[in-house]
Amino acid sequence: MKNVAIGVDIGGTNTAIGVVDTEGHVLVKNNIPTPTDGDINLYIAELTLSIKDLINSVELLNEDTEVLGIGIGAPNGNYYNGTIEYAPNLSFRGVIPFVKLLREKFPELKAITLTNDANAAAIGEMIYGGAKGMTDFVMYTLGTGVGSGIVVDGNMVYGHDGFAGECGHTTLIPGGRLCACGAKGHVETYCSAPGMKRTAFEIMVRDNATTSLLAEKSYKELDSKMIFEAAEKGDKVALEVFETTGKWLGLALANTVHHTSPEAVFLFGGPMAAGEYILKPTRESMEKNLLPIFRNKIKILPSQLKPGDAAIVGASALVYKELQGLS
Amino acid sequence: MKNVAIGVDIGGTNTAIGVVDTEGHVLVKNNIPTPTDGDINLYIAELTLSIKDLINSVELLNEDTEVLGIGIGAPNGNYYNGTIEYAPNLSFRGVIPFVKLLREKFPELKAITLTNDANAAAIGEMIYGGAKGMTDFVMYTLGTGVGSGIVVDGNMVYGHDGFAGECGHTTLIPGGRLCACGAKGHVETYCSAPGMKRTAFEIMVRDNATTSLLAEKSYKELDSKMIFEAAEKGDKVALEVFETTGKWLGLALANTVHHTSPEAVFLFGGPMAAGEYILKPTRESMEKNLLPIFRNKIKILPSQLKPGDAAIVGASALVYKELQGLS
Repeated sequence: MKNVAIGVDIGGTNTAIGVVDTEGHVLVKNNIPTPTDGDINLYIAELTLSIKDLINSVELLNEDTEVLGIGIGAPNGNYYNGTIEYAPNLSFRGVIPFVKLLREKFPELKAITLTNDANAAAIGEMIYGGAKGMTDFVMYTLGTGVGSGIVVDGNMVYGHDGFAGECGHTTLIPGGRLCACGAKGHVETYCSAPGMKRTAFEIMVRDNATTSLLAEKSYKELDSKMIFEAAEKGDKVALEVFETTGKWLGLALANTVHHTSPEAVFLFGGPMAAGEYILKPTRESMEKNLLPIFRNKIKILPSQLKPGDAAIVGASALVYKELQGLS
Repeated sequence: MKNVAIGVDIGGTNTAIGVVDTEGHVLVKNNIPTPTDGDINLYIAELTLSIKDLINSVELLNEDTEVLGIGIGAPNGNYYNGTIEYAPNLSFRGVIPFVKLLREKFPELKAITLTNDANAAAIGEMIYGGAKGMTDFVMYTLGTGVGSGIVVDGNMVYGHDGFAGECGHTTLIPGGRLCACGAKGHVETYCSAPGMKRTAFEIMVRDNATTSLLAEKSYKELDSKMIFEAAEKGDKVALEVFETTGKWLGLALANTVHHTSPEAVFLFGGPMAAGEYILKPTRESMEKNLLPIFRNKIKILPSQLKPGDAAIVGASALVYKELQGLS
């Protein structure tokens, strides 16, 4: 008997679905568009079809497969209610009872469970990745935004309302950069991939750095990968972007450490491709901003989830975590 | 049979000891000086004597009393190890195995347990106070410093190292006011009682407010009680101190809410005597700084622990919490 779980990652434009084994390997996967017209019933029907197709194809390979459940990572996903609530990047309005709708299609499964994408990534890290065996850690996901998941005593912190772990929307600099959420100075505006771009232009403006490699790109097209490539060529502006981003990220991590005292902080996302360019200044800044009782104890580690599959794998891990809790 | 627990609150100059019943009433209490010469063995001997005296006096009143254990609130108290580690305000050097030393004197007790004072206050609130029945809440203690205790799923968050909940040492304003810990811009430097004093002088300097009631006090003597009294008389500077302190405190609380999504935040300490002067701007600022998914949900409440006895009562609650965990 081979146990598998379905991982579903709901993004603004695309929904990725995969069948994942207990070691975190994606056996088969598929994609469907996330609707832009708000039609949830049609979407649930298409998602159901896609999941059943994938289950069939896995069972063709190995008849003795048991599908334990479906884990879903979604923006503004509420773990307690199984709902997606007022997600600004999705077309569905209000509160969507996502797990309930999917449960009607899969009454036989042991677990159907949903949380936000950063929490799913943290659980993925705990079940399959670098956080195996850790009971207290934090995951920061650096992408278009900054997400986070906090694990205490081996359990995901969902909080009273199921929405805990929004460290990207804590305030780093009061009155600072405008955040997508409408507030100012949030961690996300400095430490996300677009935050790095903003820092790059801030430095170019300050120094009038017309000879920087980054000065050849428009504000719209510059991204964190280009900044990394320029840093590798020794571009001064690009190198300073990593120093500055690390300085801010380290401060944000220190604030989180002072809350829950984790063993390690995992970092996940595009900017992490830059490795030590971002890790070194982040470590230095975090240490500098920690109380002495926390210093030289807390590891900052790159996520060990595979970038391409991480969202699916993380979502599928929700199922195993849920069944651990039930057993 | 009447169950009681001993609460011990270790302060920089004074140690308060009390016998507390299961409803949080202090039956008898005592004080001994906290030594300034670092002699831990003499201190343990004196503390033991004082505890035994108190137990005897309670047993004289009611023969059928069982002492369940001793709970200790101490600066830099480590719950996991039962140690006091490098506490800057105590004369003991290095790591003191406090619980072990006390256990040798009281081998018969069911529980001897220690944590920092803010965590003890949070557990006190949970066992005896306004947080009864809540599983997810946060306690901020506003005094000479700002301490905090975080409860998730009904359990105190101690973290990997036993030192979680140092929200007073998260950074509110990078590069801001110098903190007692040596860092800059910490929450404590704006939201503690001395932080309010600093804000008062900042406002007087800005406005050259020589006619303010607060302008009659020296920098050394002005305290949060005087600011409250001046606010009640309509003093403009004093009123603005509360507005400003609330603005900063609300921002700090929003950052914490974004971490663990509590049901309520409890505020404890001297500045809370000012009631709505501090609560109203704090609530407004917290709401303003929360993501929409958190708005209009999280209560800010004054602690229901009695100011004079709270530290002893909170420390004693550690014993009941510990025994709940064991049962």
